[in-house]
Amino acid sequence: MVEIKVGLLGLGTVGSGVVKIIASHQDRLAHQIGCPVKVTKVLVQNPEKERDVAISPTLLTTDADEVINNEEIDVVIEVMGGVEQARQYILQALRNSKHVVTANKDLMALYGTELLAIAKEHQCDLFYEASVAGGIPILRSIVDGFSSDRITKMMGIVNGTTNFILTKMSNEGKAYEDVLKEAQDLGFAEADPSSDVEGLDAARKMTILATLGFSTNVELTDVKVKGITSITEEDLSYSRDLGYTMKLIGLAKRDGNKLEVSVEPTLLPNKHPLASVQNEFNAVYVYGEAVGETMFYGPGAGSLPTATAVVSDLVAVMKNMRLGVTGNSAVSPQYEKVLKEDNEVFAKYFLRLHVKDEVGVFAKITSLFSSYDASFEKIIQMPLEEKGTAEIVIVTHRATLENYQTLLHKLEELDAVKCVKASYRIEGESK
Amino acid sequence: MVEIKVGLLGLGTVGSGVVKIIASHQDRLAHQIGCPVKVTKVLVQNPEKERDVAISPTLLTTDADEVINNEEIDVVIEVMGGVEQARQYILQALRNSKHVVTANKDLMALYGTELLAIAKEHQCDLFYEASVAGGIPILRSIVDGFSSDRITKMMGIVNGTTNFILTKMSNEGKAYEDVLKEAQDLGFAEADPSSDVEGLDAARKMTILATLGFSTNVELTDVKVKGITSITEEDLSYSRDLGYTMKLIGLAKRDGNKLEVSVEPTLLPNKHPLASVQNEFNAVYVYGEAVGETMFYGPGAGSLPTATAVVSDLVAVMKNMRLGVTGNSAVSPQYEKVLKEDNEVFAKYFLRLHVKDEVGVFAKITSLFSSYDASFEKIIQMPLEEKGTAEIVIVTHRATLENYQTLLHKLEELDAVKCVKASYRIEGESK
Repeated sequence: MVEIKVGLLGLGTVGSGVVKIIASHQDRLAHQIGCPVKVTKVLVQNPEKERDVAISPTLLTTDADEVINNEEIDVVIEVMGGVEQARQYILQALRNSKHVVTANKDLMALYGTELLAIAKEHQCDLFYEASVAGGIPILRSIVDGFSSDRITKMMGIVNGTTNFILTKMSNEGKAYEDVLKEAQDLGFAEADPSSDVEGLDAARKMTILATLGFSTNVELTDVKVKGITSITEEDLSYSRDLGYTMKLIGLAKRDGNKLEVSVEPTLLPNKHPLASVQNEFNAVYVYGEAVGETMFYGPGAGSLPTATAVVSDLVAVMKNMRLGVTGNSAVSPQYEKVLKEDNEVFAKYFLRLHVKDEVGVFAKITSLFSSYDASFEKIIQMPLEEKGTAEIVIVTHRATLENYQTLLHKLEELDAVKCVKASYRIEGESK
Repeated sequence: MVEIKVGLLGLGTVGSGVVKIIASHQDRLAHQIGCPVKVTKVLVQNPEKERDVAISPTLLTTDADEVINNEEIDVVIEVMGGVEQARQYILQALRNSKHVVTANKDLMALYGTELLAIAKEHQCDLFYEASVAGGIPILRSIVDGFSSDRITKMMGIVNGTTNFILTKMSNEGKAYEDVLKEAQDLGFAEADPSSDVEGLDAARKMTILATLGFSTNVELTDVKVKGITSITEEDLSYSRDLGYTMKLIGLAKRDGNKLEVSVEPTLLPNKHPLASVQNEFNAVYVYGEAVGETMFYGPGAGSLPTATAVVSDLVAVMKNMRLGVTGNSAVSPQYEKVLKEDNEVFAKYFLRLHVKDEVGVFAKITSLFSSYDASFEKIIQMPLEEKGTAEIVIVTHRATLENYQTLLHKLEELDAVKCVKASYRIEGESK
């Protein structure tokens, strides 16, 4: 093998980073692999477009066949994004016995199991470290680093846009809309931010993490998702007063053989390792039965950080090629998936209510709580400007989701309660 | 291959953890490896000793030959500690073509290069993830996760004992001696704590990290070491006032092709990811040219966390055995080691002086600073109870170590300066 030939699908932010790293780290890569690596063909939409990466125009093509059906190419790197087209290209590349590295979380969350099975069938490697938490080597830490342990909980700040927004809102007391605008101006949020702010992007990553961490087939539709669009300055201010930090947390939890996976705005104690993860940074907290608490922190996006993950995967593929052991990395899931019912999901909650400021209100709320097996850990009551109205903020003890949801519903119905303004899960106080 | 047979050298804290994890995670291990794994022989000093792990007495032996020269055994796990004896056993095991997993930082810091070469020669794997930062999969993150990047800086809180002591001193305003006593009572510090508190333990781990991260042969004697024994409550209090957190930081830094490796009490800005690492937890901050800032956090010691790392290494060995590709993991260092001279080491410093409280003192200090290319970023002056004496705390701008050391010396000689009470490096404000 004189050199290893790589084809790229896409030359956007991540693709340019991949080309740059392969070019500038050539001696380091060759030292590890034992032979040079060369980018041979790159699929682009518009070869004329100006790019901030030096690449010979002869390498560019608008014909995917020149990559995926090119006999010369050993490894295909998919960094074009999107789902269906990327899936077809990857399937074709695998059928042609090409190894594949992808950064595509949408694709892996939806079709990961299928693609890994096809890869195995054709004795190909399919790696996707960059699909979760950009530059953080979290997938290989879960698969290799904790191969001897039983992971019972993962909590991820896996979306940089929403973490940037929540950090700014918390630190500067600004409103959601203003910070979103700022994030868009800085390039941290898309013009259409919905997949980020509504939690879908995080849900895709949690699907991938939960599937690997729990060795089972978690699907995107298994993830309960709630975004950050309705978080107010009041919620953040009360959270702070109570010693909590608000984060959009992807939670994947296992009790016995039963799972829950969710993405929702969550309050963490200020001392929790995830609470100090600021701005656009990502972090994944992993709890293993034997190892206990660990956390992996780093950039969740960006051209070079994400490209690092892609090229590190490429190195892994190339080492396997040199050793003749490709196609052995994917371990099929060990366990059948069993999702928890709502009466098996336990959590503490933060609850903010507007109530009538009159005698007996507290007693009514208290009695409602006890009839649903829920109780208070902390309460703040404050008068509001609106006459005859008070604001009550409650931190509950642990309750089942089923009871808590019924309780919320009954509170809304209570004559003394004007409305439930906000409700957030609290995590990270105990395992 | 019906099953993989493992021999243990040592059955102390970590060894017991290894036996427990192999016993309790049998199905998970077998699923990944494709065959069962069995502990076959365990070298102990005293077979009669009561242990908190269930193990058949017939497996115990006081004769090392029954492990290292036992033809049945495929993999030897060394968790006995110490240097010379462990080294001889491991060498013999490797010569017998047995793969080795070790948790021994002292040994790997001193003889890692030799042992890895012998392992390669005999086509054996030699893994040592547990030797640095216990349960944190930091070595494989550096080797595999950042294989495509160029690491330029690593900062580690890699000694749990000293981090526990500094956390307590900072949070509770207690003196070093009192907290040390407390740590000893809780089992976080040894009866003879010198290897921890004088920074030697951290230096061993930084030797291993720097060797891997910079792909060169860093030796223990290359590490400049300073411990925590002379840190006072005053130092911590001023640090806090200035927005810094004191940590014992192992620093490995590369500028161009020149390296520096040190372990010393260091001030970090409170916002730095390492600043919030509390108590006995460890963390390693890694800066890569492409990936930027990352951090790996978790338990640095303890029976089960450390055993997780050992058994995850064992899984890696066993996967390689099944694939027939053992002995390929060790990549020989790529670069020749060049250490920085003192005039190439740049840093900011925190400096606390007692001076005569009289006219002109400030001018003399200022003029001394400028003659050594050093300048102030922040100054605090406070009168002291002792008549005619003032305390000055200075945060310098960046200066070379050479200039700074001469400056310290000249300050001591200055008539107006009664004494230099403390001096600490500041890191983490820029790359």
